[in-house]
Amino acid sequence: MPQPFVKPITITRFEHDQTSTVQELLAGEEPLEIRIGYGPEKDRQQKNIAVTMRTPGNDFELALGFLFTEGIIQSGKQVHSIHYCTEVNTLENKENIVRVELDSETELDFTRLQRNFYTTSSCGVCGKESIESVKTVCPFPQSEFPFEVNRHVLQGISQTLREAQQVFAYTGGLHASGLFDFEGRLLLLREDVGRHNALDKLIGAVLGGVTLQKTYSIALPLSNYVLLLSGRASFELIQKAAMAGIRLVCAIGAPSSLAVQMADELNITLIGFLKEHRFNIYTHPHRVIL
Amino acid sequence: MPQPFVKPITITRFEHDQTSTVQELLAGEEPLEIRIGYGPEKDRQQKNIAVTMRTPGNDFELALGFLFTEGIIQSGKQVHSIHYCTEVNTLENKENIVRVELDSETELDFTRLQRNFYTTSSCGVCGKESIESVKTVCPFPQSEFPFEVNRHVLQGISQTLREAQQVFAYTGGLHASGLFDFEGRLLLLREDVGRHNALDKLIGAVLGGVTLQKTYSIALPLSNYVLLLSGRASFELIQKAAMAGIRLVCAIGAPSSLAVQMADELNITLIGFLKEHRFNIYTHPHRVIL
Repeated sequence: MPQPFVKPITITRFEHDQTSTVQELLAGEEPLEIRIGYGPEKDRQQKNIAVTMRTPGNDFELALGFLFTEGIIQSGKQVHSIHYCTEVNTLENKENIVRVELDSETELDFTRLQRNFYTTSSCGVCGKESIESVKTVCPFPQSEFPFEVNRHVLQGISQTLREAQQVFAYTGGLHASGLFDFEGRLLLLREDVGRHNALDKLIGAVLGGVTLQKTYSIALPLSNYVLLLSGRASFELIQKAAMAGIRLVCAIGAPSSLAVQMADELNITLIGFLKEHRFNIYTHPHRVIL
Repeated sequence: MPQPFVKPITITRFEHDQTSTVQELLAGEEPLEIRIGYGPEKDRQQKNIAVTMRTPGNDFELALGFLFTEGIIQSGKQVHSIHYCTEVNTLENKENIVRVELDSETELDFTRLQRNFYTTSSCGVCGKESIESVKTVCPFPQSEFPFEVNRHVLQGISQTLREAQQVFAYTGGLHASGLFDFEGRLLLLREDVGRHNALDKLIGAVLGGVTLQKTYSIALPLSNYVLLLSGRASFELIQKAAMAGIRLVCAIGAPSSLAVQMADELNITLIGFLKEHRFNIYTHPHRVIL
């Protein structure tokens, strides 16, 4: 079986009242742009079909499978060849653009093409470029905002979220985003089948001026709060958190390589695998009192 | 805290060598189209921004949060009002289109608009319409293809997948799609940070004519195989499975309401919460020998 792309990293681990520096592996995450070349030989055109955040490896399979499962091609025979667009790729986005050359007799369903053109929040076709773009667009400064949170607070919030996620207990099918204050009180909780939607709902609630508890009035930027994600932390979630000015993100699951890179560059403390007795600090550990 | 949308369902549960019919709750999943109205009063225009598969509830927050975290608006003050497009909604897609009216002085960054226009695999803005569309496009007949699989086979494959997912053990950050034969042998495994990518890679590998083991030659349609998903089963994954002609989908996690509805209508047996000693059958249980 092919080995997917993983990235080594040095992290701070807290476990059984002990802090240690350990090596860990992150799941790779990078944008992939899928292009198709189509039309008769003399009049060959190109169309950008999709950008997806993927783990590098098996990229030609991914492009083929995507085109097929989205109904753009009906058979592997319609594909003449696949290659990386090395001529437009720089060192930064090496192997992040794949071009699928269709057989000249293949007819494309342009209605589906338009429908299915999906892009992620990623701007550009390399992780570094995507991070730079978020830095530019983010309405709040990435400068240091000094604060510290006690580890006991972090160790308590996963339990709090679990208890609050009553629906989760029933269906097991909903992702959650929870906003906590630095004392570990849950202020806002949103759930959704899509983890990015749960976070958008939470940030949208703040933006809409919703005050959930009488004693709290939450406003952007959310630099005074802790964001807890019920699942894994991908690029997209850290990007959304950064846009809202959040400086401390905890995830019950694993972060991706690009999530860690972005948290590092945007001055966000990122914690993963948060459990009651252990957690990993991936970036900016100085804000956690261990 | 607001109560997210859940849907009751009657399922077949196998647990501790006993089969029972029980009630369960599914996480709701439906498409949401986000539109913006913009420009000066006399020349008001409309733009479709995104379609996302979401759990109904807090839709205005979702629209607001999405527009903000994607950098389309910079503040809640730029929004004049939000409403459901009830005039275009039918009974089927009630409350699945949200229109955000921007303040006439808001200037839009059209570059970001183009970049961030993302749609899901969903065609149309209601679940039923999306399912109909898959039925039309799917290249393989949805007619009955008689087969039966012993429950012992299903109970074994989650362990097999876990063992094969060595990288998962390291990073905990990769979703997997595994293709098994009816004897429970793992034929093909693909991993990715995105669950839809893992499945596209798997189907793309088959489409590309990759034969992993000398004794197997896998080709579409995949009606003679079992697909195992390492996480939850959403609409998008069942859609992709259906396109490849898969008739038996197992998930380690929970399915969404739309995943179950689609599996039901496309004659796919859908199993969720698959563990060694228990699993739930959501649709077409006749294919599992209990």
